[in-house]
Amino acid sequence: MDVFDAIKGRRSIRQFTDEPIGKEELERLLEAARWAPSGGNQQNWRFVVVTSPPQRELIRKFAPGIFAMPAAFIVICADKEPDANPWKEALYVADCSIAAQNIMLAAYEIGIGTCVALSYAKVAVSEILDLPENVEPMLVVTLGYPAEDPEPPPRLELNEIAFMDEYGKEWVS
Amino acid sequence: MDVFDAIKGRRSIRQFTDEPIGKEELERLLEAARWAPSGGNQQNWRFVVVTSPPQRELIRKFAPGIFAMPAAFIVICADKEPDANPWKEALYVADCSIAAQNIMLAAYEIGIGTCVALSYAKVAVSEILDLPENVEPMLVVTLGYPAEDPEPPPRLELNEIAFMDEYGKEWVS
Repeated sequence: MDVFDAIKGRRSIRQFTDEPIGKEELERLLEAARWAPSGGNQQNWRFVVVTSPPQRELIRKFAPGIFAMPAAFIVICADKEPDANPWKEALYVADCSIAAQNIMLAAYEIGIGTCVALSYAKVAVSEILDLPENVEPMLVVTLGYPAEDPEPPPRLELNEIAFMDEYGKEWVS
Repeated sequence: MDVFDAIKGRRSIRQFTDEPIGKEELERLLEAARWAPSGGNQQNWRFVVVTSPPQRELIRKFAPGIFAMPAAFIVICADKEPDANPWKEALYVADCSIAAQNIMLAAYEIGIGTCVALSYAKVAVSEILDLPENVEPMLVVTLGYPAEDPEPPPRLELNEIAFMDEYGKEWVS
């Protein structure tokens, strides 16, 4: 599947079938994440793949935006240095988010639906996953075979979000 | 080009030829960004495409990590609400980063090299781009036709970064 087609065709999926995701497929998604760029090639991301039913139940309980049970979660965490400044904090979020998008696009290519969430109880998720003190959950990706085929949500037009050389100089197609 | 191949094959490019990037190609990259998911479909991202020589000179001057002049920058900004809490701040970074990765993968597919940077003087870049008070530059993507073909930087192995169900339970391939 072409990259541009995947980017345009991918939808956030929130209803999943009961079909589990095979180990090979999960590993492919982890590989996709592993090849993301990261600031200074630090690779401070850590990926916890949650497939066991009791662990999935617990994660869902503390992620109020996730209604239907996915076949798996990948909780993307940052292995942080102590007392990171706001710039470094943003870098952790950026690196983990770029890896998340790799996972979501690679998943779409093999028929797996995903949705990314930032709304969850950080302390609870950290306890459920037994994260060390310096490791923080940054994003949760839900994964499963799609049980829905949603319409694309409305998008702002390019001339509403893009500018030429400076803000206010509207992008003209 | 297949998604997975693009993810694995893409390298950060820091040396560019002098060849400009056509409007059509730039628009394709903006389209790729526009179709990224965003929290609550808020699409708070704004994209300033910088191609004019004086604007490029200025941006590079205030981005110390960018040595060679790219053919273009896309400065990805967040249109922020006032007094955003830390959670919302992270969401802005995440949304803009996911859009950045769409740009970088879509660029790779059409032969354009990119590199993403978070190191730049925010106030200076905001002034150069004439950003309104509520709009903040979050990431800078450099773009150009590659003048180098770098080796992949070393990556941690999956068993160093991935876990099964909880932290410490190493991913076994």
